[in-house]
Amino acid sequence: MFSNATDLAGLIDHTCLSPATTGEDIRRACDEARRFRFASVCVPPCYVGEASVRLQGSAVAVCTVIGFPLGFQSLSVKIHEAREAIRCGADELDLMIHLGAIKMGKAGAVRTEVIKIRKAASGALLKVILETGYLTQKEKISACRWCREAGAIWVKTSTGFGPKGAAVSDVRLLKTAIGNGGFVKAAGGIRNLKSVEAMVRAGASRIGTSRGVEIMREYIRGRDRS
Amino acid sequence: MFSNATDLAGLIDHTCLSPATTGEDIRRACDEARRFRFASVCVPPCYVGEASVRLQGSAVAVCTVIGFPLGFQSLSVKIHEAREAIRCGADELDLMIHLGAIKMGKAGAVRTEVIKIRKAASGALLKVILETGYLTQKEKISACRWCREAGAIWVKTSTGFGPKGAAVSDVRLLKTAIGNGGFVKAAGGIRNLKSVEAMVRAGASRIGTSRGVEIMREYIRGRDRS
Repeated sequence: MFSNATDLAGLIDHTCLSPATTGEDIRRACDEARRFRFASVCVPPCYVGEASVRLQGSAVAVCTVIGFPLGFQSLSVKIHEAREAIRCGADELDLMIHLGAIKMGKAGAVRTEVIKIRKAASGALLKVILETGYLTQKEKISACRWCREAGAIWVKTSTGFGPKGAAVSDVRLLKTAIGNGGFVKAAGGIRNLKSVEAMVRAGASRIGTSRGVEIMREYIRGRDRS
Repeated sequence: MFSNATDLAGLIDHTCLSPATTGEDIRRACDEARRFRFASVCVPPCYVGEASVRLQGSAVAVCTVIGFPLGFQSLSVKIHEAREAIRCGADELDLMIHLGAIKMGKAGAVRTEVIKIRKAASGALLKVILETGYLTQKEKISACRWCREAGAIWVKTSTGFGPKGAAVSDVRLLKTAIGNGGFVKAAGGIRNLKSVEAMVRAGASRIGTSRGVEIMREYIRGRDRS
């Protein structure tokens, strides 16, 4: 499925989002990301500066999370958080959208949130997390449409802290709903190569996982055997 | 154990922190809190203004959460969030402290966070959440000491989103560690009257639960039978 290890690594957001994460964990994750050439490290907002320094001169992006993982902060707080992340060196932002607004059918509020965060994060790649475990099929499709109308081209299935991780069926649904030129990040409970392959086959263009190193080793072992 | 229903209700933070919470959920929770005379409603930051208006003229406090539930935001974001909550009418703030700082033994960082949030939340009651499920006994005790040194007199066991809910043993430990004139809020997985009673017996002065109405009904049924 992947022509080489770099192809696989280039899909992975190497994720380090435990609330008990220390500076040492971040430094280790950055060094692993550099070594395996992961797409990004995904770190808590308070460690963006540290990761950014540690990854200087590498092609690995620094990704962080906004309004994570519940999404119910005031919009002004999310804007401040996005600006602060960019100021500290973040290249990518995974935004947890306000699910209550989706539930209430407030298309305008969802679009406004995406537009304001896009503006605050000028230049950064923005992925909008939908936390599909809380949404009906109809809500997932509406949310994708509103995100797209507001200029977001990436959606992400889940936070890894919600009621459900990434599901192949959700990746497929989101990939269709976000439309041409849109992308899906699958995240939550992706622990091995088989699961990565299933997500990519369903349409995922990025994989969020804390098991990146194990997955790379699994790939390399398989390749060396064949 | 409680001399009347008002005594019991006065211990309860009526909690409404699902990420899919809607405006209607908040209005219902506020009306329930007014009717049963709960100590507070605990609502997402984006609904503080709405809850504050709905509860005008009642004795029910509006409580919200800062840096919730992972605590790994930049301090400047938490300060902004606290200020915004107070501006919108919050009377109480439950702050999720940065657990990484506790794990790294950074007493200064923990104290600074508490001091800055206390300052931002001038006048509001501040409870510091320790999310005990991630901490060793030693870390729990140190965290309480640092909170106290920084002027916080309330600690809270858990968020309800972590690996573990409130435990009787943690309430007891925190009550001792926070010392004279200090208070403990027990939260996470408290679903019935028996559990409330166990927490209060262990030293809790406030109970965070989304089952406040059910617990009050259980109490009233028991009282009417006896």
